[in-house]
Amino acid sequence: MSPTTAKSPDVSRRSERSRKAILQASMELVGEVGYPKLTIEAIAARAGVGKQTIYRWWPSKAAVLLDAFTEVVHDQDYESGLPDTGDIEDDLKTVLRATADEFSDAAFEAPYRALAVAAAADPELADQFVARLREPGLEVYVRRLRAGQEAGQIDPDLDLDLAVELLLSPFQQRWLNRSGPLSHEFTDRLVEMVLRALAPREGAR
Amino acid sequence: MSPTTAKSPDVSRRSERSRKAILQASMELVGEVGYPKLTIEAIAARAGVGKQTIYRWWPSKAAVLLDAFTEVVHDQDYESGLPDTGDIEDDLKTVLRATADEFSDAAFEAPYRALAVAAAADPELADQFVARLREPGLEVYVRRLRAGQEAGQIDPDLDLDLAVELLLSPFQQRWLNRSGPLSHEFTDRLVEMVLRALAPREGAR
Repeated sequence: MSPTTAKSPDVSRRSERSRKAILQASMELVGEVGYPKLTIEAIAARAGVGKQTIYRWWPSKAAVLLDAFTEVVHDQDYESGLPDTGDIEDDLKTVLRATADEFSDAAFEAPYRALAVAAAADPELADQFVARLREPGLEVYVRRLRAGQEAGQIDPDLDLDLAVELLLSPFQQRWLNRSGPLSHEFTDRLVEMVLRALAPREGAR
Repeated sequence: MSPTTAKSPDVSRRSERSRKAILQASMELVGEVGYPKLTIEAIAARAGVGKQTIYRWWPSKAAVLLDAFTEVVHDQDYESGLPDTGDIEDDLKTVLRATADEFSDAAFEAPYRALAVAAAADPELADQFVARLREPGLEVYVRRLRAGQEAGQIDPDLDLDLAVELLLSPFQQRWLNRSGPLSHEFTDRLVEMVLRALAPREGAR
């Protein structure tokens, strides 16, 4: 759904500006006050729009936030996919290092944590979180691993969905529990250990 | 710190009964109302004690809850350790199946989720959660993997802390995100895939 359908260019431009301001405001605010205290009113005030503008385009604060995150992540990975230089170890290390850097950025980390915490407490939000953000996020990894299978670097019989859980969950758990540093050292060792599980079995090639 | 130090047997017995009632009440209530709305007053009412009794033994609701969970988990694994039949795959599958069953029990799952969500939102609580519950929980797995190293079933050069993160994080993420079933099928496949990463390298034995 786009708010700019069938409008004149000027109206479209204004709408697009408002839309981006609303998404930006929702990200900032949820990082500042947390999901339970986030309100449409506060988002509208921060974005400089009337709250009816928000209600016209989104049914709930959850919907606003999920659009905001989808847009941020979409811009990055979902369409272009992961790098594929032919060296799967190198490519995965590059991507996980970049992800570690991203999670060290409070402007991204705080809102994402607020959303993850809210989703963990709220099954309905969790369903949307999984469908809109988590599943598409995992899918780009599955595609890269499938290319690795085709290149003979990954066991062709492997369950790639489970393989991606193996790769990403330790990162996500460390982040959510703050139980260890999200360093490049950590992500490199993680990629190396997981690739041992994914390698074709000796003698099976 | 024990509330029963240097008391007569009768007083000790009453104290112990109150202590257990308080821990039980805190678990039930946090599962019902969530961590933010949990109060010492409500725990006292549910346990049938005065709230001063709670304040005498614990500084905060977080402290009560962490004791409650430590006791539940302690009773199970922390001292006895994981099973060691000599077959590491079989032992890990047994343990993860039992853990999956435990997380399907609402009486355990709901309070644990409430605590995990609260810890994700609160760095101070997260520190205690990691130190009191997560680290000791991981340590029993590290000990079992170390025995596997000594038996020649696990690569002797492996970082066992990271290995345990690899084993447990996909389970924890699925649970927290409700992103897939915590079935025995899942935990079995997880154990099998992780053991591929942990096996001694061919030719290195």
